Amino acid sequence: MGRIEEVWNADRLIGDFGMKLLEAREGYARVSAKVEERFLNAHNIGHGVLLFAVADVAFALSVISVEYAVGVQYSMNVVRAAMPGDEVIGESRIFHKGRQQMVCELTVTDGSGRVLARGQATALPVSRSAYVEKQPEGKSG
Amino acid sequence: MGRIEEVWNADRLIGDFGMKLLEAREGYARVSAKVEERFLNAHNIGHGVLLFAVADVAFALSVISVEYAVGVQYSMNVVRAAMPGDEVIGESRIFHKGRQQMVCELTVTDGSGRVLARGQATALPVSRSAYVEKQPEGKSG
Amino acid sequence: MGRIEEVWNADRLIGDFGMKLLEAREGYARVSAKVEERFLNAHNIGHGVLLFAVADVAFALSVISVEYAVGVQYSMNVVRAAMPGDEVIGESRIFHKGRQQMVCELTVTDGSGRVLARGQATALPVSRSAYVEKQPEGKSG
Amino acid sequence: MGRIEEVWNADRLIGDFGMKLLEAREGYARVSAKVEERFLNAHNIGHGVLLFAVADVAFALSVISVEYAVGVQYSMNVVRAAMPGDEVIGESRIFHKGRQQMVCELTVTDGSGRVLARGQATALPVSRSAYVEKQPEGKSG
Repeated sequence: MGRIEEVWNADRLIGDFGMKLLEAREGYARVSAKVEERFLNAHNIGHGVLLFAVADVAFALSVISVEYAVGVQYSMNVVRAAMPGDEVIGESRIFHKGRQQMVCELTVTDGSGRVLARGQATALPVSRSAYVEKQPEGKSG
Repeated sequence: MGRIEEVWNADRLIGDFGMKLLEAREGYARVSAKVEERFLNAHNIGHGVLLFAVADVAFALSVISVEYAVGVQYSMNVVRAAMPGDEVIGESRIFHKGRQQMVCELTVTDGSGRVLARGQATALPVSRSAYVEKQPEGKSG
Repeated sequence: MGRIEEVWNADRLIGDFGMKLLEAREGYARVSAKVEERFLNAHNIGHGVLLFAVADVAFALSVISVEYAVGVQYSMNVVRAAMPGDEVIGESRIFHKGRQQMVCELTVTDGSGRVLARGQATALPVSRSAYVEKQPEGKSG
Repeated sequence: MGRIEEVWNADRLIGDFGMKLLEAREGYARVSAKVEERFLNAHNIGHGVLLFAVADVAFALSVISVEYAVGVQYSMNVVRAAMPGDEVIGESRIFHKGRQQMVCELTVTDGSGRVLARGQATALPVSRSAYVEKQPEGKSG
């Protein structure tokens, strides 16, 4: 079993949020989640946490496809609301793979392909044992 | 009922995550959540989404204490892992309140007060009707 | 004279840095600067401030092509060094134009087209008088 | 000669911008620059590049006080304009020192102590030889 399946199956939040794996290959991943009732905020639209969640899970899968690593920095601009019942799709693509860091561009779209949010995230490589046990700094999910 | 209670009660994700409101006053808010089994990632530590969630909810409450607004930008550095069963506390403080934007500093700590993550977030004011109905851009949660 | 030329000619730092305007149209701009001796840091490579400068000037031009606005938020990942004597090119493209904010993606490349840095920036619209006089919050350059 | 003096003297941009070193100790640094004519933008206020520059130089000094490292990520919110002839002060404090990364909080104030900008920045450690020669990824200034 590859690292992507390992993370996909072991991550409890992915299951709890009912995410679907749309695509995952070296340096790239795309996942989706439905804007269920429990993910609505005070004005009845999809919560910012849900947008972050699909971006973050795509990010984790895209970097883990290359090597064990933990996410340490996130920047995200939210530009449009997710509507109840719609799908939100998180996408991550590594645009820099260095010895000390991997940097990804993140995009969140709705079911019609409209951009809801865009951002960037940074991951630092860790050894497999550090990854599986616990890590000294940062986190991966 | 004030705007803080209005948001706290109407936001479905706050309820679903089992968050507690520790403190909320003008320009400041602090909330907590427990690192339950369902919030663990592939290496059995608290998911990054949970850290973001407590920071984002504190952010939303701190700005809503001042006026109706939607969050549009988030930057966060994660520096330490959240352990299973521990509490994570999200805190937000407005450090700039302008006519066109509010900017907050965000801190996430664990039950021992150690910093897990720090960041900043930006909110844009909206009219109450736009807030309650749906907003043209951005989101609040 | 259009807003782009107005800003290009009136901005003193653009002149001081010896920047060249490579392209500017609605929602997009690209500028360059040479990595001169005065822009070298302690390890004899192009200073981070120079990378930020070409990105920021491209950003200002891309938003001003649409309307008077001031920059309020910047996020940037630096992934590779700029070498002495090389050109650095800053590029900005608006990916969201809303009523209350414009959001751009920023890219900095070297003379060979390799990515040195990537980021995002946010601008808030202001009236022309506020722009020309001074603005209540934020800045445009 | 310590690492701080080494960087301060060797960085050409620090000299070109006429910066002053106000304070530097382990994990902390504060520098200033004057909002000269050449640093004004199109609406006659201090350029965003100048605000970034004092923050970035303070950042570089604060991390170099601890170990050789290169800056890889910057996030900054600008909330107020710098006026011509005023001083701008950049301040950086390490809030996380890990094995793989150092993370700092950045503040830019004017001569009256009012906050102009706030942000965070991340640095990755490098060996001295990599630092002095040139580095494979990232940059330090």
